[in-house]
This record gives sequence, structure tokens and C-alpha cells, in this order.
Amino acid sequence: MKIAFVIFDGMTSLDFLGAYDPLTRLKSMGFLKNMNWEVCAPTEQVTDDRGLVFTPTQVGLSLERFDLVVVPGGFVTRQIRYEGPFIHWLQSMEPCPFKASVCSGALLLGAAGFLKGRKATTHPAARVELAEYCEKVVDQRVVEDGPVITCGGVTAGIDMGLHLCEKFAGFDVKEKIRRQMDYYG
Amino acid sequence: MKIAFVIFDGMTSLDFLGAYDPLTRLKSMGFLKNMNWEVCAPTEQVTDDRGLVFTPTQVGLSLERFDLVVVPGGFVTRQIRYEGPFIHWLQSMEPCPFKASVCSGALLLGAAGFLKGRKATTHPAARVELAEYCEKVVDQRVVEDGPVITCGGVTAGIDMGLHLCEKFAGFDVKEKIRRQMDYYG
Repeated sequence: MKIAFVIFDGMTSLDFLGAYDPLTRLKSMGFLKNMNWEVCAPTEQVTDDRGLVFTPTQVGLSLERFDLVVVPGGFVTRQIRYEGPFIHWLQSMEPCPFKASVCSGALLLGAAGFLKGRKATTHPAARVELAEYCEKVVDQRVVEDGPVITCGGVTAGIDMGLHLCEKFAGFDVKEKIRRQMDYYG
Repeated sequence: MKIAFVIFDGMTSLDFLGAYDPLTRLKSMGFLKNMNWEVCAPTEQVTDDRGLVFTPTQVGLSLERFDLVVVPGGFVTRQIRYEGPFIHWLQSMEPCPFKASVCSGALLLGAAGFLKGRKATTHPAARVELAEYCEKVVDQRVVEDGPVITCGGVTAGIDMGLHLCEKFAGFDVKEKIRRQMDYYG
């Protein structure tokens, strides 16, 4: 089990961290010992939409080798969905069995072509834009359709992360992680 | 309005981000235009409890000039609460009107002496340790006692951030931020 957490300039950090926290607990709490992950960016450093600076573990690495790729959102997704090299990089996740997005990260999965014929969701303010990429925009906290998992805005990433914990490790593990996160769920 | 977000090696990033997201929206969404913040660390880089790397905006800066200081938790708090230079640095927030912690960050506020005679809360797993620093450990999501605001584990930082948004900018602003975060609250 190998996860890529994609980060990029202008992202909303809580989109990323809300999914990162429960998913990485699969390993840190000892449930999936062979799991590992990378924080993958197109640039050497990443500055979020409010100035917070992260250093990725991998820069420009092709995403094809991962089991799950998680893409956060941010207002900047409205622009970067039209940036060829960035979307081309995201398209390298094509062979990955699971592709997930938080918030308006769904627009990026859409621009990369992964939502064709799929049900999906996003931040309430990005539903109109999302409609052009998918078959149906669903008003639901977490939506799973085949290999694609999308969720609502910002904090919905926590619910999606927990949903994936249950998918990969079962209900009891998910509940232990949820309680450790002191989350109502 | 000037906020210090304290970060340190071994912290749980979601503790930090859960408070950072709503509080920084006070500015990014245009409600408190004169607000600003720094991300303050004792070291040039910070690596969280699962390997994620952040670059602070200020290193070793005395905290006395801030209106609000927010301290995250993490398992490492059980050790670093005994590290003199680190706690001495945290004590520089003594004159700040508001001191806040997320999760086991309360142990650090406690070790710095700020919880004496106060009610406080923390992650459910850190309540026994917290009891030695404060008058009463309260089983409540967010606890405000004079200048000190503490909250439960990890995701409770979101609730504390929203609580502080309401305190500084009113209920309507808090509700707008909560909805933008797609959070049930």
C-alpha cells in the first residue's frame, strides 16, 4: 500500500492534512505496517493559499506507481486546471487503482479526465465547474465511484480519509483512528 | 490582531492546521483586514510526527508581541514538556492576552505555568498528565478560562479555531467561515 499525497502552490492545506492524518495513522498506529507514502509536488517547495511553506518528499515524480493518489483543492484549482504541464503530471496517475480528491481538487481530477462517466462531488461553491467533467454531481459528503473517491469541501477530507481507512483496513480500525483523532464522524 | 502559530518537531500537523485554517480565513475572507500571523518554531525546519516538513516564518522569535499564540500537540509533548529551553521559549508568551492549545499542546501550556488555577482540557489520552498542571480537567470540546483556551484532541482544533473566530469577529463571521470550510460544527 503506497499513497501519494499531491501538494501544489495555492492549495488549501487543511484539504491535504484532513486526509493525510487518518490515512497515515494506518501506519503510525500499527495497523498497516507495510504501508508508506510520499508527499509529491511539481516544485521543490510548496506555499499554500495563505503562505504556509511545505517541502515535498518527491518533486515531479511520475504518480503511476502508487495505489492511491490524494489531490487537495484550493481556489487556485480554477486556474491550474488549464495548465497543461501540471495536468499532464496528474495524468500520470492513470494506472493507479484509487484516485481521490478533497474539495475543489475534484476539478483537477476532472481536468485530467478521470471523472468521465462518473459520479463525483466537491466544495459546494465548485459544483457548477465540476459538472462539466463528470456525469453527475452528487450532494454527498464522500462519493466513491469505481476508482474515484471525491468529497465535499475542506473538512470533508477528514471524512474521506476515514472512509478510505475503513475501505483498506476495516470498520474497527477506522473507529480506532476516528477516536484517536477525537472526531465525531 | 497578530497570531503566532507555534510548530515544533514531532507535532501532529492536523492539530496546527485545524486551528490555522479557520483563524487565517478571518483575513483571507476579508473579515479582519489588519490581522496577520507568523508560523513560529524553535528550529529552521519542522518535521511532524509522520515526516511532513514545514518551514516556519520565524525561528526562535520571542512570542511576547502576539495577541494570540496557538500551540499544537503530539505524542512528543510528553517529552518536550521537560525540555528547559523549549519551555522557556514558550514562556515568552506570558504577556499575550490569549494563549491557546490543541490536543496535548495543553501539556506544554501547563509546563510553561499558564494553567495554574485554570480549567483546561486536552486529548482524552492526556487527561491524567494534564491534571498535574491545572485546577480542573474538563470533559468539553473547547474550554476557555480567562486568557487560556484549550480543546480536545486533534480535530477539536477546528472547533477551537471557529470558537476564536466567533470571539474575535462575531457569530455571523464564524458561521460564514464554518460554511466555507464545509464543516458541521
